[in-house]
Amino acid sequence: MKLKILGCHSATPTASTRPTAQVLEMRGNLFLIDCGEGTQVAMRKNRIKFSRIKCIFISHLHGDHFFGLIGMISTFCLLGRDTPLTIYGPKGIREIILLQLKLTKSYTTFDLRFRESESKESHRIYEDEKVMVTTIPLDHRVYTNGYLFEEKSLDRKLDITACEEYGVDKAYYRKIKQGHDVELDNGKMISNHKLTIDPDPAKSYAFCSDTMYKPDIVPIIKGVTVLYHESTFLKSHEHLCERTKHSTAAQAAEIAKQAQVGTLILGHYSTRYGDYELFRKEALEVFPTVELAADGKEFVF
Amino acid sequence: MKLKILGCHSATPTASTRPTAQVLEMRGNLFLIDCGEGTQVAMRKNRIKFSRIKCIFISHLHGDHFFGLIGMISTFCLLGRDTPLTIYGPKGIREIILLQLKLTKSYTTFDLRFRESESKESHRIYEDEKVMVTTIPLDHRVYTNGYLFEEKSLDRKLDITACEEYGVDKAYYRKIKQGHDVELDNGKMISNHKLTIDPDPAKSYAFCSDTMYKPDIVPIIKGVTVLYHESTFLKSHEHLCERTKHSTAAQAAEIAKQAQVGTLILGHYSTRYGDYELFRKEALEVFPTVELAADGKEFVF
Repeated sequence: MKLKILGCHSATPTASTRPTAQVLEMRGNLFLIDCGEGTQVAMRKNRIKFSRIKCIFISHLHGDHFFGLIGMISTFCLLGRDTPLTIYGPKGIREIILLQLKLTKSYTTFDLRFRESESKESHRIYEDEKVMVTTIPLDHRVYTNGYLFEEKSLDRKLDITACEEYGVDKAYYRKIKQGHDVELDNGKMISNHKLTIDPDPAKSYAFCSDTMYKPDIVPIIKGVTVLYHESTFLKSHEHLCERTKHSTAAQAAEIAKQAQVGTLILGHYSTRYGDYELFRKEALEVFPTVELAADGKEFVF
Repeated sequence: MKLKILGCHSATPTASTRPTAQVLEMRGNLFLIDCGEGTQVAMRKNRIKFSRIKCIFISHLHGDHFFGLIGMISTFCLLGRDTPLTIYGPKGIREIILLQLKLTKSYTTFDLRFRESESKESHRIYEDEKVMVTTIPLDHRVYTNGYLFEEKSLDRKLDITACEEYGVDKAYYRKIKQGHDVELDNGKMISNHKLTIDPDPAKSYAFCSDTMYKPDIVPIIKGVTVLYHESTFLKSHEHLCERTKHSTAAQAAEIAKQAQVGTLILGHYSTRYGDYELFRKEALEVFPTVELAADGKEFVF
C-alpha cells in the first residue's frame, strides 16, 4: 500500500503549497482522493500515469478539494482517453462538471460516471475483488465524507514444500488456498494449516478531511493501518475549530488513539504556520506514531 | 504600458508550461486577460497584488482560458477582498461561476459583476477616463472575443519655461493643457503650440486568441502598438488550422502586416513543438517586428 501526497495544505494554493490531493495505490488500484487546483500538474510532476486513475473520490465541495477536477477531466478528453472514469462525491459534483463540459463544448471520449452521495450514514460505495471503499461521514461546514479503503483478505499462501511432501495433487491447490482441508488418495485427511501459511494481513487506509473533532467516526475506522486526519490548527488556535469546523493536531491524535490505528498522518495545515513539526509534537503527546504529510511525499505501508 | 505573460501555451497545463493568462498594465489599470488553471499561483509567483485586479477579460469558454477563474474568485473571498470585481466574457461564464459559489457555499465579500457578451459585432465593453476596451470578434470553435485595449489621448504637456517667459498666469494652465490658446493681460493672443509640447502618444494593445486566420479583424486593430496573436501551429501543420480553428505563425504575421501594427507577439504554442524560435523565424518572413511570448516574460512598450 502506497500513499502519494500531491498536496496537503488548506484554503488556497500558493507559490509553495498545494491544496489537497492524494493518490492511494492499493492492490493494483490507483485511487485519486480529492483534486484541488493544480492536481493534474502535480500528477505530471510525480509521473503518475493518468490512465491508471479509474476512480476519483471527492470529499466535499470546497474549492481546495475539487477545483482541479474539471481541468483534469478536460485534459483526459484532449488526450483521447478511453479508460472509463468514475467520480465519487457529494451531490452537486455532477452538475458542476457537466455544465462546464457542455459550455466548453467538450465531449468525453470515455465513459464518465458519477456516483453522488447524500446519506449521512456510512455506506459502501465501491467494491471489486480486492478492495472496498466506504464513506466516513464527517462534520464540516458543507456535506463531507471521508473514505475508508480496505483490502479484502487474501487467500492463504501455499506451502509448496509441505504439499509436495504430503503428495497433494496440484488440482487441489486452489481449494487449499481458499482454506479447505485435503483428503489424500489413501483416505488420510490433511488439515489446511499444515499446507498453508498466513497471507499478508489486509491493510486499510482512512482519509478524514475536512472535519471538526468527531469521535463518532471511531467505530468506522477502528484499527486501520493508516489514518490521515486533518489538523488545520494547533491547540493554540482551538477556538477557531468550532466556527470553521476543523480540527487541531491534538484532536486528530485523540481520534487515532481511540481508534487504535497503526499510523496517524497529519495534514491540511493552515498556511499561518511556518513550522509543521509543531503539529507532530502536539500529536505525539497523545499518540505515539505520527507522520507529517508534505507535498510530494510518499508513504509505503 | 506593460504586458506580463503569466502563461502562453495551448491545451493543458504541464509541469513546465502554463495555459493562457496575461496581465496588462495600462494607465494605472491592471487588467487580467484570460485565466487558465493555476493563474492565481502564477500571479503570486510574479508578485501581482490581487486587489489591483478589478477587471478580468475572458476570451472564450475553453478550459485553458478560464479554469483558473473560480479558484481565483474563491481565494478573493477567503482573503476578505472588498474591491469590486467585474468579469467580462462570453454568455455562460456567470452561470458557471455562480453555480460553483452556490454549491461551495461561498459568499463574496465584494461586489462581483458579470458583463457577458453574445454579439458577433465588435462593441465597447469598458471605458473609464483613461482607457477603453472593445471586443474583437474572432473565429474559433466556440464563441470567442479578442480584446482591444486603447489608451485615450492625454492632455498636451505644458512647456513651463515658455509659459513663464510669456508671463502666463498659472490659472490658465489647465485650459492650455486641454489645447486652448491664451490671451495675455495685454490682449496679446499666444497660440497653444507655443506653450505646450505633444503628449506621449496613446498606446493600444490587441489580444487575439484563439482564432483561425480572420482578416476581418484588420480594420478593428489597425495601427495598434502591440498585437498578441495566437500561433498554435507552424505552416507545416497548417492543415490542422481549419478543423481546430487556430492559426499559424505566418498567418499571425500576415494579420500584423495588414493591420500595420507596431509589434507582433506570438503565443498559444502547441506543446508539440520544442523550439519556439521556429515561430519567430516563420513570422519574420512576413512581418519585421516579432516577439515571442514566454511564461513569466514581461514586455514594456
